[in-house]
Amino acid sequence: MARGTFVAFEGIDACGKSTQARRVAAARGALFVFEPGDTPLGAELRRWLLDAQTQMSPVTEALMMLADRSDHVATVIGPALRSGTHVAADRFYASTLAYQGFGRGVDLADLEAATELAIGECLPDLTILIDIDVDTANERRARNAEDRFESADARFHDRVREGYLEMARRDTEHWYVVDGRGSPDDVAALIDSRLDRLHW
Amino acid sequence: MARGTFVAFEGIDACGKSTQARRVAAARGALFVFEPGDTPLGAELRRWLLDAQTQMSPVTEALMMLADRSDHVATVIGPALRSGTHVAADRFYASTLAYQGFGRGVDLADLEAATELAIGECLPDLTILIDIDVDTANERRARNAEDRFESADARFHDRVREGYLEMARRDTEHWYVVDGRGSPDDVAALIDSRLDRLHW
Repeated sequence: MARGTFVAFEGIDACGKSTQARRVAAARGALFVFEPGDTPLGAELRRWLLDAQTQMSPVTEALMMLADRSDHVATVIGPALRSGTHVAADRFYASTLAYQGFGRGVDLADLEAATELAIGECLPDLTILIDIDVDTANERRARNAEDRFESADARFHDRVREGYLEMARRDTEHWYVVDGRGSPDDVAALIDSRLDRLHW
Repeated sequence: MARGTFVAFEGIDACGKSTQARRVAAARGALFVFEPGDTPLGAELRRWLLDAQTQMSPVTEALMMLADRSDHVATVIGPALRSGTHVAADRFYASTLAYQGFGRGVDLADLEAATELAIGECLPDLTILIDIDVDTANERRARNAEDRFESADARFHDRVREGYLEMARRDTEHWYVVDGRGSPDDVAALIDSRLDRLHW
């Protein structure tokens, strides 16, 4: 049986990636998954990771994210792909490199090695980066309680955004950058036209 | 201020390392620490790690251990050493290499890279391996409820033991192997004579 197609959606908060990942999953019969926290173990890890009161070092944060990802790959994403099911993910490995690596300054080579440990061969066929600037993200975000990432300063989110763009530049075969400032329909049209080239 | 001396005690369950680590800490005014679970975050991670009902892949297990270790180093061990306090640890980095690497087959090079991420420069001045064979360990262990590691088969514990001995052989400057089959006093005398050479 052919392995399913695996597409990851990335970007800073409020870029619209969850909306697009859910839409694509529904339209193409793919399994929608998200990180962190999509498994029973991951949900517990997520509780601390997003709690604005929790103090932890950037490295501890990265290792918790990777533990969640490893569990996600072992119990959900890997089995789905092997059974021929397509998968659309709201965040995957690039989030840890962007947030903890580019954003918080954890050594990127070490993070990549630990990422390899966590995901093995389970790489996305395509990562779609929905790119918006931090000012636009701030305007969009509802003024509700912020989590530990949303409450970080604008320069942090700038570094995260630049990290994503850097990864996309380095591997244009497996990354596709969409301008996220358009309407959801405009963004959807761009994504669909790129996904059609995957023949899934 | 001079950095404190850091000594880690390792070995398979029931080898006597907790007893010796506590004794050394008390006798020499060192801080006694243990892994996993010696921080608030770590205590939660430990709950799943040792629960015999929890299913998780060896890699997820390793990453959870490393998250616990990273938090331990950042919040307890690192600050203690920097303030000049000596530290005696019941398990440290070698446990993950022995149990998840040698024992469960997780790639050792990847594990070492992830370990470097977790502990940075915080390496023990000396690791004391209290070595006993698996049969002796089984005889010693109280027949109470077993955790996820204790319930693994004897061949697993054999691989863990061999992994420890292999690490000790590779780095005799930073490892000291004690025959753990003697009485606690015999084992203590051997350990004390080696520790005296550290001048702490």
